[in-house]
Amino acid sequence: MPCKPTPTKSRASGVLAPVELPKPKWSGGKSLVESLRRRQTTREISDRKLPLQVLSNLLWAACGVNRRNGPFGVPGITAASASNSQEIELFVAMQHAVYRFDARNHRLLPVIAGDLRSMAIGRGQKSMVTQAPAQLIYVVDLHRLTHTAGFEEPGLHDPEVQKSYYYVDTGLIAGNVYLFAASVGLAAWFHNCDRIALSRKLKLRVAQRVLFGQTVGYPSK
Amino acid sequence: MPCKPTPTKSRASGVLAPVELPKPKWSGGKSLVESLRRRQTTREISDRKLPLQVLSNLLWAACGVNRRNGPFGVPGITAASASNSQEIELFVAMQHAVYRFDARNHRLLPVIAGDLRSMAIGRGQKSMVTQAPAQLIYVVDLHRLTHTAGFEEPGLHDPEVQKSYYYVDTGLIAGNVYLFAASVGLAAWFHNCDRIALSRKLKLRVAQRVLFGQTVGYPSK
Repeated sequence: MPCKPTPTKSRASGVLAPVELPKPKWSGGKSLVESLRRRQTTREISDRKLPLQVLSNLLWAACGVNRRNGPFGVPGITAASASNSQEIELFVAMQHAVYRFDARNHRLLPVIAGDLRSMAIGRGQKSMVTQAPAQLIYVVDLHRLTHTAGFEEPGLHDPEVQKSYYYVDTGLIAGNVYLFAASVGLAAWFHNCDRIALSRKLKLRVAQRVLFGQTVGYPSK
Repeated sequence: MPCKPTPTKSRASGVLAPVELPKPKWSGGKSLVESLRRRQTTREISDRKLPLQVLSNLLWAACGVNRRNGPFGVPGITAASASNSQEIELFVAMQHAVYRFDARNHRLLPVIAGDLRSMAIGRGQKSMVTQAPAQLIYVVDLHRLTHTAGFEEPGLHDPEVQKSYYYVDTGLIAGNVYLFAASVGLAAWFHNCDRIALSRKLKLRVAQRVLFGQTVGYPSK
């Protein structure tokens, strides 16, 4: 099934609907050690669409809920974060629209219609992968980072400390994406993005900042 | 076998010797999906030593060489890095000494004798895990970051851009460590460290900066 919302009345009228993702489920995935052996950056990525089940698996692997009773009374996710703040939000730019991954409910919430994939790659890094089926966009929510139920991390209101946390936490998610891709034969590439253009388009709150992009799809070679 | 250098003449005379790590090899490791399901932060860690084979597996999973022909003519490692610069160095603080992981030769190079494990945890974060067997210390080498064989990344000489790269790259390694721990039943906790004290002790070059710590060992509960 192509990776786009189930047609609904609201979509027919031009308004995007949320996409309920199927439960994560995959067979044929590799062991961790084999996934680590195959982990690599692949920039040659085709325009072949990701089935919705694969997108579901990918997003769960990235930062989906893996236990209901996580630290500090908050559900835990597959990637660690400072005081379990889960301050990194994953947006997904596809051909027809951009969605935000709602990990708690394992669904995609519509952000904006249209093809913003070329903005998810940095200037000077663009190539044919702008036609790749999914561009993950990493966005930090500084409010979440400074309002956790967990430990008061040292220096948390210092922007330099904040940076060190949210960039590390981005890497923790991106690493899961790389390993997921290696495990199931997909290609992945972590890269810069057009932060200014995306910040204007993604209807962000004041506390949100666009950080990086990561392309995922089928290898073209 | 306990995780310490093979006794040698040089050690007997008080000088630490390099530790050749056994080839990475493990059985009973989980699938990637099962490792993601079990991924969590565990702060309760016992003082039980890691066998040398487990330490070898851990370091390979973190950022070991997984292909001789990686991007830009450089061997590839299990964690991505900006232009394959591999600018993050992993130091390992154990009870008797601190070593630096030499990924290319899969060995530990001695840095300093003595127990620096308590410095690898941030002030205010200390607890009984200072007795945990291995404290990984993340150190960036800015020279490597700015002298790669790969793409000239945009703004690479801007300290803000550098930060964004080396913190993400730290997270990419730390995520591998978390998943390795989940895969084999170890506990892992990524945390702050005493950057000032470690910077004085680790005999760093001018271009190196201490970033974070990560404790690994057997769960104590």
